[in-house]
Amino acid sequence: YGGAPVASDPMWGYFTSIAGQDGEVDAEELQRCLTQANFTGSYAPFSLETCRIMIAMLDRDFTGKMGFSEFKELLVAMNGWKQNFVMFDRDRSGTVEPHEMSQAITTMGYRLSPQALNGILKRYSKNGRIFFDDYVACCVKLRALTENFRRRDQMQQGAVTFQYDDFILCTMAL
Amino acid sequence: YGGAPVASDPMWGYFTSIAGQDGEVDAEELQRCLTQANFTGSYAPFSLETCRIMIAMLDRDFTGKMGFSEFKELLVAMNGWKQNFVMFDRDRSGTVEPHEMSQAITTMGYRLSPQALNGILKRYSKNGRIFFDDYVACCVKLRALTENFRRRDQMQQGAVTFQYDDFILCTMAL
Ligand SMILES: [Ca+2]
Ligand SMILES: [Ca+2]
Ligand SMILES: [Ca+2]
Repeated sequence: YGGAPVASDPMWGYFTSIAGQDGEVDAEELQRCLTQANFTGSYAPFSLETCRIMIAMLDRDFTGKMGFSEFKELLVAMNGWKQNFVMFDRDRSGTVEPHEMSQAITTMGYRLSPQALNGILKRYSKNGRIFFDDYVACCVKLRALTENFRRRDQMQQGAVTFQYDDFILCTMAL
Repeated sequence: YGGAPVASDPMWGYFTSIAGQDGEVDAEELQRCLTQANFTGSYAPFSLETCRIMIAMLDRDFTGKMGFSEFKELLVAMNGWKQNFVMFDRDRSGTVEPHEMSQAITTMGYRLSPQALNGILKRYSKNGRIFFDDYVACCVKLRALTENFRRRDQMQQGAVTFQYDDFILCTMAL
């Protein structure tokens, strides 16, 4: 998988000990890896559901597994989202308000209609607040769907014609 | 919401006692309702995640809630899926094999490429088997995505041109 990792990479140990011989992790192994590395800190560990979406986001060959280079790509994105979340969650309660989540999405550069934003906020809230796990699930999904869309929007017209099978392929795993 | 329900409807009691004054349930209330009615029987109760997708499937006005008539529509679909699942899960272990899930999807009338099917099976498996909760989540999502697609495919050509915002609206809540 593209060159030996630097020995000083603190995640390398966690990753390889869990990945085993094939050098890749599935969703359950990814969950274990992120939990052992205490990635979520004072927040609750990631649900298996969120880990599945993380895998799907980077799983361009549809094997359901993730290698170390994809894992590092995931961590880069997640560190950004975590910083954003911690900034909004000032009292460290582990939740942010829907309007803060809405600001965060806009800050990330997504331009969405109020209707689309509203649908997202409803979907990822529990009792009117958004937990870190759901926040990350939302960020992962939004990024993956947007990438799938952009990759097909070669003229950058903001419109893509999907065949049914391709539409299902782009959306069901997320 | 469209006429008084017949008093003999066994789900009416569960639904109204949980829905409260607004006559609608959110994802947490739907989970409680299905658990109290013991809908899953010997299988584990539905996860909150699956209940969120159930709400999103029928939530045409994006309120994040479900009325009794939508709830009954959900139950009709779910009874069909449950019968299918029980048929395949002969030993009542609570899981089916991926190839059985693949047969079930085909039986439901979906025509998908091996690649799309494979992506779905990977996504909803745990240790190579599919639990009832994930099976239902998969059925709900596949039905909702297919309906969203069909509603836009008015010429029935199997192809739809999506604007970015509409694509996100159709997919993020599921
Ligand atoms: Ca892979
Ligand atoms: Ca907070
Ligand atoms: Ca509604």
